[in-house]
Amino acid sequence: MKIVIIGGVAGGASAAARARRLGESAEIVVLEKGDYPSFANCGLPYYVGGEIEKREKLLVAPIDMLRQRHRLDVRVRSEAIKIDRTAKKVIVRDLNAGTEYDESYDKLVIATGASPFRPPIPGIQSDKIVALRDLNDADRMRELAISGAKRAVIVGAGFIGIEVAENLARRGLQVTLVELADQILPPWDREMVLPLEKHLKQEGVELKLGSSATEFDSSGKSLVVTLNDGTKIEADFGVVCIGVRPDSKLAADAGIECGPRGGILVSSNMQTNDPDIYAVGDVVQTVCSTTGAPTQIPLAGPANRQGRIASDHIFGRESTYRGTQGTAVVGVFGKTAAMTGLSEKVLQSKNIEYEKIYLHPTDHAGYFPGAQGMFFKLLFAPDSGKILGAQAVGTSGVDKRIDVIAMAMQAHLSVFDLEEAELCYAPQYGHAKDPVNMAGFIASGVVRGDQPIIHADQLAGRSDLMLIDVRTTGEFSQGAIPGAKNIPVEQLRERLAEIPDGQKVAAYCAVGQRGYLATRILLQNGIDAVNVSGGYRRWAIEFA
Amino acid sequence: MKIVIIGGVAGGASAAARARRLGESAEIVVLEKGDYPSFANCGLPYYVGGEIEKREKLLVAPIDMLRQRHRLDVRVRSEAIKIDRTAKKVIVRDLNAGTEYDESYDKLVIATGASPFRPPIPGIQSDKIVALRDLNDADRMRELAISGAKRAVIVGAGFIGIEVAENLARRGLQVTLVELADQILPPWDREMVLPLEKHLKQEGVELKLGSSATEFDSSGKSLVVTLNDGTKIEADFGVVCIGVRPDSKLAADAGIECGPRGGILVSSNMQTNDPDIYAVGDVVQTVCSTTGAPTQIPLAGPANRQGRIASDHIFGRESTYRGTQGTAVVGVFGKTAAMTGLSEKVLQSKNIEYEKIYLHPTDHAGYFPGAQGMFFKLLFAPDSGKILGAQAVGTSGVDKRIDVIAMAMQAHLSVFDLEEAELCYAPQYGHAKDPVNMAGFIASGVVRGDQPIIHADQLAGRSDLMLIDVRTTGEFSQGAIPGAKNIPVEQLRERLAEIPDGQKVAAYCAVGQRGYLATRILLQNGIDAVNVSGGYRRWAIEFA
Repeated sequence: MKIVIIGGVAGGASAAARARRLGESAEIVVLEKGDYPSFANCGLPYYVGGEIEKREKLLVAPIDMLRQRHRLDVRVRSEAIKIDRTAKKVIVRDLNAGTEYDESYDKLVIATGASPFRPPIPGIQSDKIVALRDLNDADRMRELAISGAKRAVIVGAGFIGIEVAENLARRGLQVTLVELADQILPPWDREMVLPLEKHLKQEGVELKLGSSATEFDSSGKSLVVTLNDGTKIEADFGVVCIGVRPDSKLAADAGIECGPRGGILVSSNMQTNDPDIYAVGDVVQTVCSTTGAPTQIPLAGPANRQGRIASDHIFGRESTYRGTQGTAVVGVFGKTAAMTGLSEKVLQSKNIEYEKIYLHPTDHAGYFPGAQGMFFKLLFAPDSGKILGAQAVGTSGVDKRIDVIAMAMQAHLSVFDLEEAELCYAPQYGHAKDPVNMAGFIASGVVRGDQPIIHADQLAGRSDLMLIDVRTTGEFSQGAIPGAKNIPVEQLRERLAEIPDGQKVAAYCAVGQRGYLATRILLQNGIDAVNVSGGYRRWAIEFA
Repeated sequence: MKIVIIGGVAGGASAAARARRLGESAEIVVLEKGDYPSFANCGLPYYVGGEIEKREKLLVAPIDMLRQRHRLDVRVRSEAIKIDRTAKKVIVRDLNAGTEYDESYDKLVIATGASPFRPPIPGIQSDKIVALRDLNDADRMRELAISGAKRAVIVGAGFIGIEVAENLARRGLQVTLVELADQILPPWDREMVLPLEKHLKQEGVELKLGSSATEFDSSGKSLVVTLNDGTKIEADFGVVCIGVRPDSKLAADAGIECGPRGGILVSSNMQTNDPDIYAVGDVVQTVCSTTGAPTQIPLAGPANRQGRIASDHIFGRESTYRGTQGTAVVGVFGKTAAMTGLSEKVLQSKNIEYEKIYLHPTDHAGYFPGAQGMFFKLLFAPDSGKILGAQAVGTSGVDKRIDVIAMAMQAHLSVFDLEEAELCYAPQYGHAKDPVNMAGFIASGVVRGDQPIIHADQLAGRSDLMLIDVRTTGEFSQGAIPGAKNIPVEQLRERLAEIPDGQKVAAYCAVGQRGYLATRILLQNGIDAVNVSGGYRRWAIEFA
């Protein structure tokens, strides 16, 4: 058995190591175009910023180890330039020698990954503009950052854009972040990243949302970036982080089927339309594990699992990929945003019925020092309560709760199961009613009809609704939703007469808990009432 | 509807609040024997130690709030002394006035909790000996700790014993911890708490394991504790944390059925043998959610959920308790130990077939600064791979992984599902292959037969086994398992001739990964081989 793997990072490296464990006598060739196999892609921004000091730390599986321990025939600076499916061989260019040769295969694994997208903006091909794909890019950006640069413009505020912004700011640079969408981190729902946007600004990062770069002028000493509104930003260098595109040209040229967004089409065994050719990682189109719809999400975890699965199948095992769930986390200046499953905007775009709830729990018991708040959103099916997605942003404990819900989603659990989750509790770690339980309690109450809710963005212009703020008069005086009447929940039962007959009421408190109680009191007194999910705090994040 | 709830902490408080939300017009009486309803039980040790400075922080739901917001008729210092089931009334003693009165009920909820057990050891009823159940106990212990005491003896090294030890040490006291078992934290498996025992010693806590107190002598200025081996320990005061016993006498006297360990027997709706009487929290016997067997685990999360369920059922809802899983966490001097499901010792005692694996992952990517190791154990069914339990100890990220596995266990998932878990990954939060995935990979390999394993405690006296240390010669020279021959995995393929024909081999490395590769190499070369799960590090924790 001779296996050729094109690409030696994440998916390719996992496929190679797994193939060796299953096939001790197999010949395994790994062709890597770049200088290094198996480097720590996700660490590059932190090397630029200096948090990771030593470059060699990023070489997670040094080439000698792969050769000696796993007996892999790893060839760096070796680019596969053509796949000849009939002859079952790959034409390889040795980038050092400048020569070409054929490499035959029994099974081929394509793990070519994805490249930073560079849209055809005038001037983008300048050496003052960097992308961040490999160690050489990171070296270059690091060099620019430490050699006197004072200002950088980053185009694209996705994961990598945000991480690069933090790390350049850490180097003392003034950073401007330009993003076409009206929010940072486009995979998240907009309201969920508003606290992060505020935080970025507080840390000195300038945000240009709803903006695009229309021209890069490198003719002078500085780089001048022109935005769509005519604004010109002068900087020492620019970084383009607009997203990635699958490096599938090699495959497509060989007649391997690809999807509309360029990802190679694969079966659940990671097999392409050629049964002797597999594809894994950022180069493939896969399915969403929640909807079964096609998706392309470049993530390290899925790439690694897909590599294992491809090699399993090569060695005759019925290993299958369950689809990508979209679990992701990003940290920036001490804050964390994490998500799993579908966002509200994806649910809308796919016409999937959903309901959502908001909460503001703390990471651990409020009576124990150091408790930190988080802003949490859970999306679920309005009838069955099946969990569809979750997003959270905060300082501590955010990734933990999203991980628990990610696990629940893999098991297709519902919000009723979150009620019953039995999680770690001691006051410095969580709550007797963990944020995961609380999300389950609230969402279950909504599904059961105990707690009808309304959302902050549905309040404007609702003259049919009487808005009652059930917080204390002290809280109310510090700021409230316009038009609200203050009736503290403790007084509500005695003041029901202040609600006109037949009047529909929306109650709210600070975060939703007293509003829930108020809603229960009103409903049981025959008043049509809803609770504003997430309370004043949720409203204020977007509208205050 | 008139509901009387006996006990106003955790389960009782949850039942009361839930009852109010479901029954706005219900009359709800909460009888609390102590001075406060709904105080933060789990925070008491940290108030003793000063981490929680203000006493009022522990009053999570002040009595005025319960009265005004929830319209609960909360009566403190009110002890239910008799239940008259025929007349459907409770006889209540007003502990302030010294008077007694009848309180009728339609539905009764017993949430009397559990009391610290005081075994009949001579001298234990001394005022130099404290237990820790309520705020008054905490006040007393705090007073002792800050008023010149230099030395304390704690009997019992369970959760509370450990937490009290840390907190008294924080106050500058010399602490001796006496425990009958041969380990601290008896619910955990012994090898899992060895790193914590080492840590406690390093922090200056003296451990007396396998020891019991046979006499307390308070006749002098100091307390003198005599241990079973005759040792005498002089201290300023003693703390008894030997565990708790359900406060079920009131119920039993009224003919409510209790189990052999004193817990009130309840249905999955938390109903006792009297359909108008419910019981919740530490006073009940419940079922283990993994085995369905009876169990009694005093935990705050389950108590709260049971309170909700009882009130749900009172109001006609088919809400059921799924059983207690045994998820627990404890922190001590910066280290964390967490567990969920069944321990190995429980599996053995119940004759349940199991397999186990050990690993030593880090909390986040090793290439990112600050990565901290943890010691992790996963227990599973050897045939189906169903997850039976997990335990971990470390500095960071321990509770997160146990919570994810706790969620997986509620869904009855297997180790194969852990392989596919898609969890948060960025280098400061985790790994592309998270410890949960790694546990899944290893355990799945065992179930599939790819990775036969042996355990550190099965190696002694196995003259039939050739033990091969596949680490580097440098690592080997720093310490190895006695009798092992060093063949670095990189050289193994060339040195197979050093293994006699027909020889069975156990391979090991530092943590198990190279040992796994070595096992694969050996098996595929026709050599009967096993990997030592968890490697040298696992062995060294117990046997070095």
